[in-house]
Amino acid sequence: MKQKLSVVKIGGNLIEDPEGFEHVLDLFSKMDGNKILVHGGGNKTTEMSQKMGIEPKMINGRRITDADTLDIAIMIYGGLVSKKIVAQLQALGTDAIGMSGADANAIRAHKRPVIKVDFGLVGDVDSVNAYGIFKLLQAGFTPIFCALTHDGKGQLLNTNADTIAAEIAISMSDQFDTTLYYCFEKKGVLQDVEDENSVIHHIDSKGYDELLAYGIISDGMLPKMHNCFHALKNNVSRVCVGNSSMLEAGNPEYTTLTL
Amino acid sequence: MKQKLSVVKIGGNLIEDPEGFEHVLDLFSKMDGNKILVHGGGNKTTEMSQKMGIEPKMINGRRITDADTLDIAIMIYGGLVSKKIVAQLQALGTDAIGMSGADANAIRAHKRPVIKVDFGLVGDVDSVNAYGIFKLLQAGFTPIFCALTHDGKGQLLNTNADTIAAEIAISMSDQFDTTLYYCFEKKGVLQDVEDENSVIHHIDSKGYDELLAYGIISDGMLPKMHNCFHALKNNVSRVCVGNSSMLEAGNPEYTTLTL
Repeated sequence: MKQKLSVVKIGGNLIEDPEGFEHVLDLFSKMDGNKILVHGGGNKTTEMSQKMGIEPKMINGRRITDADTLDIAIMIYGGLVSKKIVAQLQALGTDAIGMSGADANAIRAHKRPVIKVDFGLVGDVDSVNAYGIFKLLQAGFTPIFCALTHDGKGQLLNTNADTIAAEIAISMSDQFDTTLYYCFEKKGVLQDVEDENSVIHHIDSKGYDELLAYGIISDGMLPKMHNCFHALKNNVSRVCVGNSSMLEAGNPEYTTLTL
Repeated sequence: MKQKLSVVKIGGNLIEDPEGFEHVLDLFSKMDGNKILVHGGGNKTTEMSQKMGIEPKMINGRRITDADTLDIAIMIYGGLVSKKIVAQLQALGTDAIGMSGADANAIRAHKRPVIKVDFGLVGDVDSVNAYGIFKLLQAGFTPIFCALTHDGKGQLLNTNADTIAAEIAISMSDQFDTTLYYCFEKKGVLQDVEDENSVIHHIDSKGYDELLAYGIISDGMLPKMHNCFHALKNNVSRVCVGNSSMLEAGNPEYTTLTL
């Protein structure tokens, strides 16, 4: 039987709220078995850009990662947020190591090709080094990933944290019975967007198609759900979507997705 | 027979010069056997503080690490410099992992006690987790340390990079035949400070006492030499002091220190 692995992605908004953040790290540290954390950087990058007088570059409403913006992402995601999470987790007894996709050659990517828009230093994932990550887990470490990848030629690249979490979970699923947790501000996928208590507890492929057909899934949830089913179709055992209390043993209020 | 380990400390000034920096990483990547890199952050922290409008706090000419200054050190040392070194080393075929003393619980420290001056969030090293670092080396990784430690209670602390290199080398010497390399801008310990070609090739304890007695060792070198002999007295096999070409096989122009 495969060993269990939990891949937990925590959203940027959680990082903004110090109390909520401590709580989620506490819950994460109490989870049994092999685990990996993936985090975004919150609004600190925007704040830092403003302090440094760097104007965010936008094309058609999409943010462009130029060299200065990437440096800020490396400082904030790869430095400040990562190291503070690690120090906090060590205090909670979890032997964490903060990593980018360059560390341990964990996540290779290529610069997104220019079709209509040049997004700049943004990476689309090519491969995850499952053996490298496995060696760290086997040695008793808990990898903490920020949303940075590298191209293997010395260039770091900005990459979406949801994507990184899904790709890590997929690559580890040969070796592990993997659960992917997406922590965000809502309790789960809601039947009624206005009603926080209308959590749908279980969605499978058939249910997903029905929800899509009836337009139940809101626009904001669509890419997240796409990531979830992409992971499930690539051997991830289950995906859980909800707020941080979903990491608490015995709490049933979140959405579990399976094929 | 013990396996060999090289602990290489590169100074901040090397990081300022992109060409020199690439060269030293290239030489480091070509070194055989187990190896660990320790780096400072150069003048980028001062530059960044100025950009962000944070005045450096000084008491009696000594820099004080307040919370804002520590955040900048974490961003620059722990983020920007660390991750760029790692990406570069990966491109050169070295399987690097960028770490602070919090990662893998590698270096515990306590806040320096206030005697006359409160240096702020500065850490004096208590212990190095040699087993944690050993596990990383054994798994084939090359740890890259920045000059940050933690107190085990969630607080990161600023710590001198020379001290970190010495303490890591000392702690690894039970297990390894360890050489500690201090790379800086000069070719080695000089007989005549004005003459770059007056490198003293070998200094032992007796020679060191003589150099001190004759006032040959300049003020700037004194703390570095103290670190060297502290390491040697604590089972580090040898300490080498010189510029980056000392890492090149076959180059004899540097100073080797032994007991």
